[in-house]
Amino acid sequence: MTVLFYEDFEIGQKAALGSHKFVRDATVGFARKFDPQPFHLDEAAGAASIFSSLAASGWHTASAAMRALVDYRETLRTEALARGETPPPRGLEAGVRQLRWSAPVRPGDELAFSFEVVSKAETVEPQWGLVACRVTGINQDGREACSYILLSLVARRP
Amino acid sequence: MTVLFYEDFEIGQKAALGSHKFVRDATVGFARKFDPQPFHLDEAAGAASIFSSLAASGWHTASAAMRALVDYRETLRTEALARGETPPPRGLEAGVRQLRWSAPVRPGDELAFSFEVVSKAETVEPQWGLVACRVTGINQDGREACSYILLSLVARRP
Repeated sequence: MTVLFYEDFEIGQKAALGSHKFVRDATVGFARKFDPQPFHLDEAAGAASIFSSLAASGWHTASAAMRALVDYRETLRTEALARGETPPPRGLEAGVRQLRWSAPVRPGDELAFSFEVVSKAETVEPQWGLVACRVTGINQDGREACSYILLSLVARRP
Repeated sequence: MTVLFYEDFEIGQKAALGSHKFVRDATVGFARKFDPQPFHLDEAAGAASIFSSLAASGWHTASAAMRALVDYRETLRTEALARGETPPPRGLEAGVRQLRWSAPVRPGDELAFSFEVVSKAETVEPQWGLVACRVTGINQDGREACSYILLSLVARRP
């Protein structure tokens, strides 16, 4: 699949982004820095909490989903370069809508990430378009754990 | 201020959450793990990018805002314990609405975080309420860099 310029995105387009396994050291390490609530740090506190176990910070899950998306995009750029094409200037992420953490992510859980283009819009700047993609992480039991709509500024064809 | 149980939250209530300075090693370290786009990793790539400089990942900024909020909440719990009160069971974050990254965060930037309660609602479970707070990070020039509405499940008074 080639999805690089704004014009190439189609509403309803989907792609698998690979999966990520959450391990204890990484989930606790993230929580120590950014979300030091006891149920993210310690097994006993997790077991006594609303999660009934140690759980990853939702911000860790959302960030891991971004990583999967970035790796996917960079692969597309590398493939385009290998074909002799010039990839567009990189845009940026403008924001996120409807971020939901629907199920806890526990150490040992593996999330399969995917995205789907949900809308696109031209902007006042002729060189940029805005693409909205829903990024979703599904756990090993087939249950959605994390999902958000990412709003990305994407370069238009010159 | 005491804001612990669902009943204690009032719409319009605000609090300062302290500030955080973003340093290069931390922004690049976060980006290597979660958002390895060149403008988050390297000065030259940043200078040539839409940001015109190395910039922190938006997920780093959002996570740092969460850290500020968690520290604030934990302080309130500690103070309640010191007064001989029993803090409520900890709830969880259900999701986020309207996350926007309005200005780049560059190494050396310092964001002052604050929150404002924007809405609250009872849930079907009598022990929990849902509180929506807008969390905002303002940079040293007084400009909003990051903002989102965090939806938190908060215990109701027994």
